[in-house]
This record gives sequence, structure tokens and C-alpha cells, in this order.
Amino acid sequence: MREITDSELKTASVEQLNGICETLRETIFRTVSECGGHLSSNLGVVELTVALHRVFSFPCDKLVFDVGHQCYAHKLLSGRAKVFHTLRKEGGLSGFPKRTESEYDCYDTGHAGTALSAALGIAKARDLRGEQYETIALIGDGSFNNGLIYEALNSLHILNTRVLIVLNDNGMSISPTVGGAHDVLKELKEGNAPAEDVRLFERFGLKYLGVYNGNDLGELLPAMERAKELLKDGSVLLHVSTKKGQGYPFCENAPVETHGVSAAGTVGKTEYSTALGEELTKLAEKDKRIVAITAAMTDSLGLRKFFGKFPERSFDVGICEEHACVLSSSLAAAGMKPYYAIYSTFLQRAFDEIIHDVGGMDLPVTFCVDRAGITGADGETHQGVFDLSYLSMVPNLAIAIPKDVGEFRAMIRMSANYSHPLAIRYPRNGTDTPVNGVEIGKFEVLHSTTSDIIMFAAGERCLSIAASILERAQKEKVDFTLVNARFLKPLDEELLKDRPEKDVFVLEDNVASGGLGDAISRFYRGYDKRLFTFGYQDTFIPQGEVSSLMQKFGLDEDVIFEKVMGCARR
Amino acid sequence: MREITDSELKTASVEQLNGICETLRETIFRTVSECGGHLSSNLGVVELTVALHRVFSFPCDKLVFDVGHQCYAHKLLSGRAKVFHTLRKEGGLSGFPKRTESEYDCYDTGHAGTALSAALGIAKARDLRGEQYETIALIGDGSFNNGLIYEALNSLHILNTRVLIVLNDNGMSISPTVGGAHDVLKELKEGNAPAEDVRLFERFGLKYLGVYNGNDLGELLPAMERAKELLKDGSVLLHVSTKKGQGYPFCENAPVETHGVSAAGTVGKTEYSTALGEELTKLAEKDKRIVAITAAMTDSLGLRKFFGKFPERSFDVGICEEHACVLSSSLAAAGMKPYYAIYSTFLQRAFDEIIHDVGGMDLPVTFCVDRAGITGADGETHQGVFDLSYLSMVPNLAIAIPKDVGEFRAMIRMSANYSHPLAIRYPRNGTDTPVNGVEIGKFEVLHSTTSDIIMFAAGERCLSIAASILERAQKEKVDFTLVNARFLKPLDEELLKDRPEKDVFVLEDNVASGGLGDAISRFYRGYDKRLFTFGYQDTFIPQGEVSSLMQKFGLDEDVIFEKVMGCARR
Repeated sequence: MREITDSELKTASVEQLNGICETLRETIFRTVSECGGHLSSNLGVVELTVALHRVFSFPCDKLVFDVGHQCYAHKLLSGRAKVFHTLRKEGGLSGFPKRTESEYDCYDTGHAGTALSAALGIAKARDLRGEQYETIALIGDGSFNNGLIYEALNSLHILNTRVLIVLNDNGMSISPTVGGAHDVLKELKEGNAPAEDVRLFERFGLKYLGVYNGNDLGELLPAMERAKELLKDGSVLLHVSTKKGQGYPFCENAPVETHGVSAAGTVGKTEYSTALGEELTKLAEKDKRIVAITAAMTDSLGLRKFFGKFPERSFDVGICEEHACVLSSSLAAAGMKPYYAIYSTFLQRAFDEIIHDVGGMDLPVTFCVDRAGITGADGETHQGVFDLSYLSMVPNLAIAIPKDVGEFRAMIRMSANYSHPLAIRYPRNGTDTPVNGVEIGKFEVLHSTTSDIIMFAAGERCLSIAASILERAQKEKVDFTLVNARFLKPLDEELLKDRPEKDVFVLEDNVASGGLGDAISRFYRGYDKRLFTFGYQDTFIPQGEVSSLMQKFGLDEDVIFEKVMGCARR
Repeated sequence: MREITDSELKTASVEQLNGICETLRETIFRTVSECGGHLSSNLGVVELTVALHRVFSFPCDKLVFDVGHQCYAHKLLSGRAKVFHTLRKEGGLSGFPKRTESEYDCYDTGHAGTALSAALGIAKARDLRGEQYETIALIGDGSFNNGLIYEALNSLHILNTRVLIVLNDNGMSISPTVGGAHDVLKELKEGNAPAEDVRLFERFGLKYLGVYNGNDLGELLPAMERAKELLKDGSVLLHVSTKKGQGYPFCENAPVETHGVSAAGTVGKTEYSTALGEELTKLAEKDKRIVAITAAMTDSLGLRKFFGKFPERSFDVGICEEHACVLSSSLAAAGMKPYYAIYSTFLQRAFDEIIHDVGGMDLPVTFCVDRAGITGADGETHQGVFDLSYLSMVPNLAIAIPKDVGEFRAMIRMSANYSHPLAIRYPRNGTDTPVNGVEIGKFEVLHSTTSDIIMFAAGERCLSIAASILERAQKEKVDFTLVNARFLKPLDEELLKDRPEKDVFVLEDNVASGGLGDAISRFYRGYDKRLFTFGYQDTFIPQGEVSSLMQKFGLDEDVIFEKVMGCARR
């Protein structure tokens, strides 16, 4: 689509604005179909974004997106229409706000719940610097369950500044929104709310305004003007009810399925999440202690069927990663066997609870850490490249890294009889070949030889690079031992102790600092070994193709191959 | 004091119970005066604890303490009076609930905000297992600001179980409680509350009961009975107003100062927090961009005077470690220079925000990480032994470890002109000798020699062990180079590259996994060096004397000395 100027937006009639909304919607739909990305949420927020750009003056005014994946219309309206076709591609436009991309993006987001704190900080800085602009936090109702939002709401009085909170209420997180606060919001927009619900917000220092047909500019524009007016005197909550997937009936009817859309299918691969659902369901039929916990992502974690079959033992607590962790730990403390499934990048939120609660009491919680390693197109905020490091420092916690979906199934089965904390980390998909049994803390020697070189690799991606290097080396008459290092903790000390090789290679789909390479190196302190460890560099990894990013940021097959050959030739 | 049996408690008159309260109070006061510990909070909660033990049946019923430092009366009433004099001593009673210590302690705590999630998980497990008991969360009003509590409140409906929340409202965190939720509570107990405040709790699925003279058993006991009755039909919030320090006028009048009491003074040492306050105040006089942020611990972090002098640039947001982090990051994004001061163990809560917000946008936030390393008597949940590891994986973040208070002052001065994320980590106190300037990423060679051994040590404690080893070695005609490794990131690569020594020792007051030892080892991959790294074992470190724990868990001077001598003799 063509670039739409700010003055055009400021002077257009409502009818013309509706036309702009149509164009935005078409562009988003077409681009996401090609590039993948967040579809329904962006379709739902088109009118809201147009209203914000109509009434406020960006980039002078500051707009903070919570989570940020609903920023597409904003990008299209801020000088990025011409490059929008590069969305989520390597070197292209980010699917999230990025300060480095445009001055219209004032604060980077990706994880939930940060926007209100961020808007408050920006507003306070403005006050202290004596500047004049407005600060707006655009927050989905899914995020409104998150503890960070509450912490920020609580400090409105303390900070003594003014912000506009636009609450985009489509009744959904990735899954439908749940919880007490949501019930209040629901009654408000259904017109059944007692007066005290409105006053509830006033107690926290917010004036409340509601727009319950938020995809109708006729209703939305005057409300936005009014909100701007009220904002002169203090903070305002503008509660806007929108429809996720608006304008595309199949999106409106299937908002969960069209929340995130992939650019292209991966042929011949099985999703680990599917395997999780299958194996856990089988186990739960026999073991009544088994419960499953998620934080607003039941479907993408493969647990929808489990939830359907065992509703009493299934808990989606909304975007509350920390609460979900303590809930898991306390269920375990009182005799249950909890499985907490979550994406690697979001588990970071529960880091303290993993240490303080689960590890601290040595409780049998199993963390199913999905989307581990480089995840690709979502970029910096969504790479799952820290988990091996932040988990490996937690006492009592075992860490498993399956070589493929089949081994993952075996690990889930093994976990049923494991009575300590356990994390199993895996990428989105892989091959699904049957594996019989896995013993905790035991590596698997995949190829054994008498050479002086040994390579430890963890997970299918690294093992596949390792296998390819082995094949190339063998063509040049060089051989080495290859080990599936499927447990970071406990390490297979017996095997490590006995291996005679001198040159030790370690490959992991994780940052180099504090992961498997460091653990094996620590074990070999005092041994007469030469260590070569490969993980990601100390930098944020941007969006791109998984294999391309792996090569670029620390796992370059050619580089590792040359190192191996160098050792062999010595 | 003598052990008080459950049947005695259940049958005593109110007068007799008041006598028991007096005995408890005296015992707590006497023991804390000797052993150190939490004084005012425990004095305030005596009647509440007696009422809980009178009305409920522990350990069958489950009592979860939020934070947990207010559990002394509970310990005295659950068979631990005879050993209470060992409180907080090595091998003695913990100052916090410990499952391994007594069946009366059903869930370990130490950090704020976990109790409601934990009580819900335990109650749900009870339902699923078809058991019969009551579950109670005892939560201070300070914790009520924490996001975790809100996440748990929000899921009361989802979890469909029953718990009793006892809100112990003394108007204080460690500092006075602040924020919107607190205003609601305050009006409730002052009798000025509009009806909707009560209904607010009902919206979340809680029946509300208030006791506004909570140190009066005559009021408290019937309310507790009533709460137990109501609990049959659903969850209950019992709001109890108590007086922090109750019974000891100087505690009542100085609840901040008597919140935590030390066992004995440390002679000749300066608190790093004092230095922080002094240096930051000086800087802030010149640099108007400087702001200070704390999470309910302004005094113990040394910032009371700063807050008094620059109220507009000072933010205590309550026990909201994550919000404080995002607030810091956004203040920086909008042109300010934030200093976020916090204890090492509590910063774990903001791990995701350090990565996602501060590191992700490369913003000039300075983290003043106090109580780093082993902290001593508070035990497992309060050791600051993970920070070097969880911080070192964050891209863009520099990490400084001052050798003493003087160098810390120089680092704070240096930070004023540093425009990227920076963490400075330090223990409670140390020596205060003047240091002129510190350059980012530059080590300091303290003792240089031509031996084949070099030792890198970080922080005063490790440098002191290193100096002692050097002295002992020199007596046996062995010498080595000693380096103050004052930056974990960036490492002093120039120095590391040029050092000719073959045997490399690294000492750090942190877990061995992922800290300084691993970083230097990673740098030396491919070099012909032998690494000997010393940090803490992969276990939770219990309470005890700092030096004794250091020796026991990984930094044993004799062991390191022998290793050095072994290298020298080779």
C-alpha cells in the first residue's frame, strides 16, 4: 500500500478513514499470509490504531504497545508501508516495536505486561525534563491479568504523573482470557456492571471511559478525543471492546487458530507439542497425580485434548508465568505431579520461582520448555536461547535435551517416575522415530571410534550439524566419536570420566555463557583436554531463518568442521 | 520458654492466651536480641498466630506464610520452643518456614508474593486427592502490592477451590507500604471505606471480614472462628490490622529500624549502602538526569537521604521488583539516568525484564546489586550467589565487582558517564580505602611476578582469601600473580591475552556455574592453560556464618592453597 501521511489522517472524513482501515486490513492480511505473523490481533486493532494516529501526534506523543505483536497498522501508518513486505524476514521489518527501526517506536516489547510500567516511566521522565507530550499504553485484556500491570497500576499514585491506558479488550489472550479481572471487564462492556466497577478504577487514580463497539470509528473517534481531553487532568483508562480477526469471518470465528500464522509449513516434521499432548494424556490416564499447567497458550503447547479429557486436572491461569510456576510447585508440595508447559522465552519470567520454590523445595515439577533455541521470525524477544544457562544454575533441577521427538516421548515417560524438578527443552518440531528408554543423566554414544576427537551435541539441530560434519570428515579420512549429550544436569560423569579423547567439542542451541559447553568444560578442569565449545554469541539474535541465524551467531558448520580438521591434522 | 501443647491452646481462656502471647513476645525479643532476625514483624503477629493455632488444627490444616520471616511465634507453638535459641545459627532453626524442619511448615518461603498461589495449589491438590483440611495464606500488606498476589487473586475463579487469606495489615513493608491497593485497605480499616471496596474483593470470589484491632484476642478470636465457618462455602479474606513491633514501644515507634536486627556489629567495616547513598547524592546534585528506584527497601539500600534530598527523582514502588525494573528501563528510554538498587536475591524476580527491557534496548540503567554473595543467617532463600551467573548471559550488560567500598565509590562515579546497562554487585560491608579511577573492563594487577601461576579474584572476600594464600605461599618460597578481576563483563581481554602464566586460578563469591570462572575459561579455550575455578557447589546454601559457609561450599582457603602448591611443585 501507499504511505499515508499524518496530515491526510488528521483531515480525512470518517468515511475516508474507514477506507484507510480497509486498505490496512488488506495489506496486513496479504503480508501475513506471505510472511507469517500475528493475524487476528492485528486485524482487530486497525480502527483503534487509526483513531490513535488521528487524535495524537506521533512520534512526539509516545505510544507503548504491550506485547507488541499488534503493531502492524501502526507501522503502516508511520512511514513503513513501502517496506512492510519485508515483515519478519531477515534484515526486514520487525513484527514488534523496535526503537532502532523508527522513532515512532518508543519502547521495545515482546513479552506481556510491561507497557504500563514503561508508559509511566516515560511520562515521569517527560515531567522531570519539563517536556510536553502525551504517553499512551496500548494493552490487551490478556495482559491485564499479568502481575506487572497490577504493580504498575498500584504505583500510579506514587509516581504522580499522567498516562492514557487504552485497554484493547477482545476477550482473548492467545487463548480466551480468563480470571477475575476479566469478569469485571466483561460485565462492563455487556452493560451489566455495577457502578462500583467503574469506581474500582478510580480508586487506582484512573478516570474510566468505555467504548463497546471499538471497531466503529463513529464511536471510537469521539471517545478518543474525550480521553485526550480528560488526560490533561490525570490518568485515563479507555476501555475499547474490539473483535479479534475483525473483517475476516474465518479469523473472527477462529481467533485461536489465526492468532499466529506460519509463513510456510515444515514438511515431514512432528511438532513436539503434539507429542507432549499425546504422551501426557496416556500417562494421566494411569497416574491420577498428573496435572497440566499453562499460561494462556494451551493450544500451541499441544494440551488442548488433555484439557478436554481432564478438565479437573488442567489449569490455564492466563498470562501469569510466575503464578503458574508457584501453583505447579505447591501442587507438587501437596502430592500432585505437575507438568508446566511454556515457551522458553516466557519461562524467563518465572526464573525466581524456579529457584525459590521448585528448586528450593526439590519438588517434582516437570517444565516442558517449548520453542527452545533459536525460534526465527519473531526475533530478539522470542529466541529461546537462554534457558540452558538460567536453568543450569538451579540446584536440584535436572535438564534434558531430547535428540528428537521420539526421544522426547521417552523422556516424558521417564519423567513420570522421576521425583525431582526436571526441565525438558525442545524446539518447535523434529523427527519422530521411536526411542525405547532414557535413563536420567545418561548420554548416548551415537558413533564410537578410536580417534582423539569427541563431539558432544545436544538436541536435533546440533546433532544434525554434528552428523553432517562427521560425514564430511569421514570423506577426508578423519573420524571422531559423536555423543548425544541429552542431559545437561546431571551430566553423564561416568562416561565423561572414561572417555580417552583429548579434543572435546561441544555444540548447543543456546548462548555460550553458562550452558552445556561451560558445564562439560567445568567437569574437565584439571583433565588434560582441549575444549572447543560452540553456542551463541553474547548479543541479541534478530529475526531470520533458524538455520541461517544458527550459522551466523555461533554454530557455523564450516567453522566447526575446520576446527575438527585442524585437530585431526595436528 | 516451655513447649505449649495444642490441647492447652485449644482449651485456654482468653486471659491465659494473653499470657501465652506475653511469653511468646518475650521469647522472640530475647532470642532476636541474641541471634539477630526479624523483630517488629514477629512481635506484631503474635496474637494472630495464637488465634490461628487456636482455631485451626495444624499440621493437618496448612498454613502458608508469605515471605515467611514472621513465622517465629508459629515455630514456638509447633514443638520448636526448646530449640528456638538456635534460631538462624548454623545448623539451627531457620528464620523462615522449612518443610525439612517440621511438618508444621508446609511450604518454604523467603521472597514476597508466593503465598496465595501456594495456598491455592495446596487447596486444589487437597480437592483432587479427596482430602479434608483447610488451607490458609498469611500475607502482609506489603506483599499485597506484589504482582504475584494479583495473578493468584485473578485465578481464584479458575481454580475453583477454597482458601482463607489472612491479610496481616501493619501498614508496612520493610518501609511503609505504598500504592493504590494499600489506599483501599487503609480506608477499610479506618472505617471510611465505601461499600464497593468490600465488594471489590467479592468480585474476585472472596468474602471479606475485617478486624481492625488485630492485637486484641477478644476481637480476633471470634473473627477467626467466623472466617473458618465462612470458609466452608468459599474463599475468605480476613483483613487483620496489627501493629508492627506490638508490645515494645521502641519497636512500635521505629518499625523500619527494628524490622531486621543484626546479631552483632561488624567492627571497622563500612556498609556499601552508605557509600551508595553518599556517592549518588553527590552525582545527582550535578546531573539532573539521575533518578533512584527501590522496591520497598530504601533504608537498607542506603538511599533514605537521597530520597529526602531529591523526592521528585526518587521512587519506592513497593515490593514490585519487576515493575521497578521496567520503570528504570523506561525512564532511561526517555532520557533519564536511573539507578535501581536492590538485593541480589530479589533481583532474580526481574530477570526477564533485565533481558527483555534493559538489555534488549541497551539502556543506561545501573543496577546496584546489594547483599551479593553469601549473606549468612537468612539462609537458602536469601543468599546472593546466583547474580554473576544470571547477569552474565545478558547481552549489552556490563558487570562490575568492586574490590572494596572505595573501589565501589569509584565505580559509581564511573557509571555516571557510562551509557549502557551496568550492574555493580557487592556484599553488605567492606573496607573503605580511597580509589581514584576505574576504567570499564580493566582488571587491576595487585601483585606481579614471573611465576607460572596467576590468580584472578573478584570482590573483597575472594581477594582476601587470595591474599592470605599468597602470603602462605610466599612463606614457602612460592609466588604467583594476583589480579583484581573487577569486571566480569567486559573481561579485560587485553590483559588476559598477554598473560604468560600457564596455571590460572579464579575465585568468585557466586555459584560456579556460569560466573566469572566460566567466563575466563571460555576466553582461554584454545589457549594452553590449566584452569582452576572456585565458586559455590550446585546446592542451596543454608544459614550460617559467611566465612564458614564460604569455606564449606566451595571457597576453602586450604584447598585452594594446596592446589596452588601442587602447581608450583610440578
